Amino acid sequence: MTGITPRSAVRTVVAGESACPNVGITSKFWGRYRRMTVDNALPYQWRALNDEVPVDVPEGGAWGENGSKFSHSMRNLRIAAGREPGTFSGQPFQDTDVSKWLEAASYALRYAGRTEGADLDTLERRVDEVIGLFADAQDSDGYLDTKFEIGLPADQRFRSLRWSHELYTMGHFIEAAVAHWESTGSHRALDIAERVAACIDSHFGDEGGKVHGPDGHPEIELALARLYEATGERRWLDLAAWFIRVRGMDPEFFDEQDYAGGPKFYPGLEMPRSYFIMDKPVLDLDKAEGHAVRLLYMATAIAKVGSLLGDERMLAAAERLWANIVRHRMYITGNVGSCQIGESFSYDDDLPNDLGYGETCASVAMLFFARALMDRKPRGSIADVMETELFNGMLAGIQLDGTRYFYVNPLEADPAATKGNPTKAHVLTRRAGWFDCACCPANIVRLIASLDRYLYTVKGDTIYAHQFIANVADFGDGVTVEQAQEGEGYPWNGNITFHVENPNRLSRKLAVRIPGWSRRWVLEVDGRRTHVQPIDGFITVDISKEQTSIRLELDMSVRRMRASLRVKADAGKIAVMRGPVVYCMEESDNPHDLWTYAMPVDAEVEERYDEKLLEGVEVLQFQGVRESAESDSLYVTAVRASEWRRDCITMIPYYAWCNRTEGQMQVWVRETV
Amino acid sequence: MTGITPRSAVRTVVAGESACPNVGITSKFWGRYRRMTVDNALPYQWRALNDEVPVDVPEGGAWGENGSKFSHSMRNLRIAAGREPGTFSGQPFQDTDVSKWLEAASYALRYAGRTEGADLDTLERRVDEVIGLFADAQDSDGYLDTKFEIGLPADQRFRSLRWSHELYTMGHFIEAAVAHWESTGSHRALDIAERVAACIDSHFGDEGGKVHGPDGHPEIELALARLYEATGERRWLDLAAWFIRVRGMDPEFFDEQDYAGGPKFYPGLEMPRSYFIMDKPVLDLDKAEGHAVRLLYMATAIAKVGSLLGDERMLAAAERLWANIVRHRMYITGNVGSCQIGESFSYDDDLPNDLGYGETCASVAMLFFARALMDRKPRGSIADVMETELFNGMLAGIQLDGTRYFYVNPLEADPAATKGNPTKAHVLTRRAGWFDCACCPANIVRLIASLDRYLYTVKGDTIYAHQFIANVADFGDGVTVEQAQEGEGYPWNGNITFHVENPNRLSRKLAVRIPGWSRRWVLEVDGRRTHVQPIDGFITVDISKEQTSIRLELDMSVRRMRASLRVKADAGKIAVMRGPVVYCMEESDNPHDLWTYAMPVDAEVEERYDEKLLEGVEVLQFQGVRESAESDSLYVTAVRASEWRRDCITMIPYYAWCNRTEGQMQVWVRETV
Repeated sequence: MTGITPRSAVRTVVAGESACPNVGITSKFWGRYRRMTVDNALPYQWRALNDEVPVDVPEGGAWGENGSKFSHSMRNLRIAAGREPGTFSGQPFQDTDVSKWLEAASYALRYAGRTEGADLDTLERRVDEVIGLFADAQDSDGYLDTKFEIGLPADQRFRSLRWSHELYTMGHFIEAAVAHWESTGSHRALDIAERVAACIDSHFGDEGGKVHGPDGHPEIELALARLYEATGERRWLDLAAWFIRVRGMDPEFFDEQDYAGGPKFYPGLEMPRSYFIMDKPVLDLDKAEGHAVRLLYMATAIAKVGSLLGDERMLAAAERLWANIVRHRMYITGNVGSCQIGESFSYDDDLPNDLGYGETCASVAMLFFARALMDRKPRGSIADVMETELFNGMLAGIQLDGTRYFYVNPLEADPAATKGNPTKAHVLTRRAGWFDCACCPANIVRLIASLDRYLYTVKGDTIYAHQFIANVADFGDGVTVEQAQEGEGYPWNGNITFHVENPNRLSRKLAVRIPGWSRRWVLEVDGRRTHVQPIDGFITVDISKEQTSIRLELDMSVRRMRASLRVKADAGKIAVMRGPVVYCMEESDNPHDLWTYAMPVDAEVEERYDEKLLEGVEVLQFQGVRESAESDSLYVTAVRASEWRRDCITMIPYYAWCNRTEGQMQVWVRETV
Repeated sequence: MTGITPRSAVRTVVAGESACPNVGITSKFWGRYRRMTVDNALPYQWRALNDEVPVDVPEGGAWGENGSKFSHSMRNLRIAAGREPGTFSGQPFQDTDVSKWLEAASYALRYAGRTEGADLDTLERRVDEVIGLFADAQDSDGYLDTKFEIGLPADQRFRSLRWSHELYTMGHFIEAAVAHWESTGSHRALDIAERVAACIDSHFGDEGGKVHGPDGHPEIELALARLYEATGERRWLDLAAWFIRVRGMDPEFFDEQDYAGGPKFYPGLEMPRSYFIMDKPVLDLDKAEGHAVRLLYMATAIAKVGSLLGDERMLAAAERLWANIVRHRMYITGNVGSCQIGESFSYDDDLPNDLGYGETCASVAMLFFARALMDRKPRGSIADVMETELFNGMLAGIQLDGTRYFYVNPLEADPAATKGNPTKAHVLTRRAGWFDCACCPANIVRLIASLDRYLYTVKGDTIYAHQFIANVADFGDGVTVEQAQEGEGYPWNGNITFHVENPNRLSRKLAVRIPGWSRRWVLEVDGRRTHVQPIDGFITVDISKEQTSIRLELDMSVRRMRASLRVKADAGKIAVMRGPVVYCMEESDNPHDLWTYAMPVDAEVEERYDEKLLEGVEVLQFQGVRESAESDSLYVTAVRASEWRRDCITMIPYYAWCNRTEGQMQVWVRETV
């Protein structure tokens, strides 16, 4: 065990939520990310929120309409709190950057205490400062959104929900408040959140005079569900369910609001109803369509509220959406959203590598969605996808030092394309220090800071240990599980042990995931080799005695992956994985152009752990080939098969790309015989 | 010889222009297109211009802001001519649809007379009606642009040149007028055109009080050069040269006009200066950048005016741009413009097959540009590109019956992508009946109707016969050349004969192009096999005796083509050509998905001319293979090389795609061993 253990264990489990253990992460790999979050990312983001870091979008980048070159988000809050004069600036949802930081910082307070050298006092002071600002900014009726409070009369509220993001903004504060209460036990932020929820409850609903439609950006639904879990107040769960059920029932709701007047945001920007997940009743959706993050926040809420209410229609809708995504709309890295226009899903099996979007927030949201589905019914296939996101799609969004971020995550990148073809201008080839629309940086950090919540699902007397992230978990009833990893640890080493203590000899089982990718595996219980077949991706071990020791050996051999033949972009190509990690070629290791390389599916590979490279990675080197040019002409008559010469193909983990020199990158490599 | 011969030979050769023969096209292939133009395309387009055909852009399509569902272009003209009341509607350049139709119809008048069943009287009456409308619409000062004449005070003219298209619009009328005079000898339209030119000359120039910058869309430059060639009036050549030299000298010219006020077009649409070819002096350009049609109209003018003036700086700029396009920025079909955003060139070797633009107008413009370069210095490599455009890139723009058109010409299409991914919405998978921005339909028709001008270049005593399009040419000095083709004719049959008559025994040479694609070829002069090496792509034969007979046998064997390794989109793929014709796979012949097919570079091929298919095409069938799916999952571990089963790959000429059922299409096919 390292020195990182939970600071406090004040969290209470309430009605409806799966029992959630107190988990200290001891993983070398994730411990570094968690320390980096406390030491670098949160302080850096604090500077950005306080206008000490300019918006930095190299060549193209995300859309937005922030007039300022700085975030202005803390200033908006200070202005709304009456601390200083000024006008609102930024995206309509600018407050959420602060709320997400508050949420991440609150999680960090739980584990930062024992982090070596962590400046906990500063973090606590900042958290308290932010809560104080939100408290002072809140209106007497509970309303809390600085752009309206600073710039617009109260009668304009909730009248322009297509783009106003008011409930999205308040939802993010509610999430932060719940996190703060969970971590510290303090009711200070939670009380503000309950007043926010009451304000919303008083304005929305079926009754005459109330607003009868949802926010353009789903978020409030899952936030209210979390508030219900934290407080047990049924009103919030019912309100969340109402927002789910009303969505898409009146596809013209936003048009009607436009027609009735109300403030205008993003004039000239027109998006189809499907972008807002508003073209049909959301519970009738068969496919993941529209803005990826909107869809996934909605799907998370549907799964979560469906689970809390036992609503079969909701649960069926959530399962349909999940199945559609993982079967047809997800890159091998876990990234989702194939289209830049509308930051959206496109159509089944459309997964262009150099043109996709794969927003970091969407990968974070996939983890929310997966966790909600696991709470209902744990399945190895879902935990596999969670792992894919954790080690690939989501993680690529943040630089190794925590201070630069990707909004868009391509599987193939070329600085020449980003610069030279406007259709690909969104595919940045270096992470940005801050964005005009800065949703991603704090989103990834709040996920990393709350990673301890993604390792276990408890159902009845069974503890599902579904992630191979070394940790010590205390289940509050005397049962503790310690997961340890050998050598350099997971994901480099697949030898994992679980030490279970059960001093009260409670009747308990531990379900350990057998990853879908591990072709072979060895399981030992108390030193004895055990042969069981996984059910739904888990093998289950009785842990009712005082101590149980489980040893799992996963097959970490390098795998060549092929996509379905339905996927045009990957035809004739292979991808490389090792354990849960997707690999890529970078120009730093392989002279351009990367598309001239190829390898057979059985290419000889050399593996080597390099502790100095990219904070420690397993590097793969393949005996590949490279095509030789016949001519300098643009098109030539081919009189014989292509000429190849042997060349080495070096691959590094995808999540670590773009931490050296800017250059070409590709995940899918041409296959040759 | 067929029944199609020139109706009149009134054309006069003036100073500076290469001597231009009177050419009657007898080619079976092109004769059909020329008849179809007279019988179908011109009457159909007349209906469209007269609001009898609605704008029809299936799924996405070109941008534009025509409020009307119809062209309204003839109505605009009638309103401006005082024939009826009403307001202007359409694109700022809506008049040009009529001018281009007038130009095409004027060319058609030259050859339509002997076309079987052609309704020449109706065509002549329509041509006269249009000229009458333009005459009445013209202002007393020569100004001629209906949108300003109908809707805006005279002091607003030439004050908003970024988007007003005033000179572009007038340039197209000038081109039409020159064509009308050339075909009919009538000065009626030409006089209007000279008054237009005088109006422009009085408003633009270096002198104080004059406008000191160009139109946002180049066109006037090449139009003025043509007007100079027709009239011998030096002023028009000097004005053309002035517009070339001023372009990009003041990159802020349009911004200054915006700042000074003036009418607004396309509010909110912002394009970089390079889009307008205005970011630097145009004569300093090294690369083809910006809006493809703008660049190519400009390049044509530079080559043409450079040639007329003997201006080396202009000629060097034209050659640089040509070299950059054909070496780095042209699809194998001749299409250019890789990027939908800005309908523009992108960067070297960026040639995405499913995402490109390849506007039909840009291929037409490539023919203008090539012809101007040939006039300066005939080269086989340039004539090769002309041939590529004629049989592929340009020709795909029109349905076989002449009544539907492509604006965008992809090399890979999939209805699912067009419908499901907005980034590809511009890639239509069925031709449209008419467009909101209807530049392409009349452009392709004016090219086909003037095809006789693209077959020969005369330099000194040498006649360069550079296209294999059967014809009879009269050089005005007694010399005639008759090109005949065997069997089904070119491009299906490569056996070509030239019969030269030279009754006055003038000292003449005939230079015949040896296409770059013909690996072997046989030449017989007067029945005797001749061994000469081509120089600059031509073999030259003395034709100073009374009669000379030349027989050329080209190598029409099927060729597999490979793109430069610099082109990512074509890596690992081959294209198929036979003679000048690029082939493609269509879903009509090959069950989807087309990307699952592959073939070795030496795949056995069966060739068959099918006179009933697609108006008569050579069909190719290859012994290919098709990948078999291992699994229904999105991603699977590949444990062995891909599994393939033998399958037939059927290919048809690219120009003829999308004349049957809507479906997938691809030019580049995966190569396997």
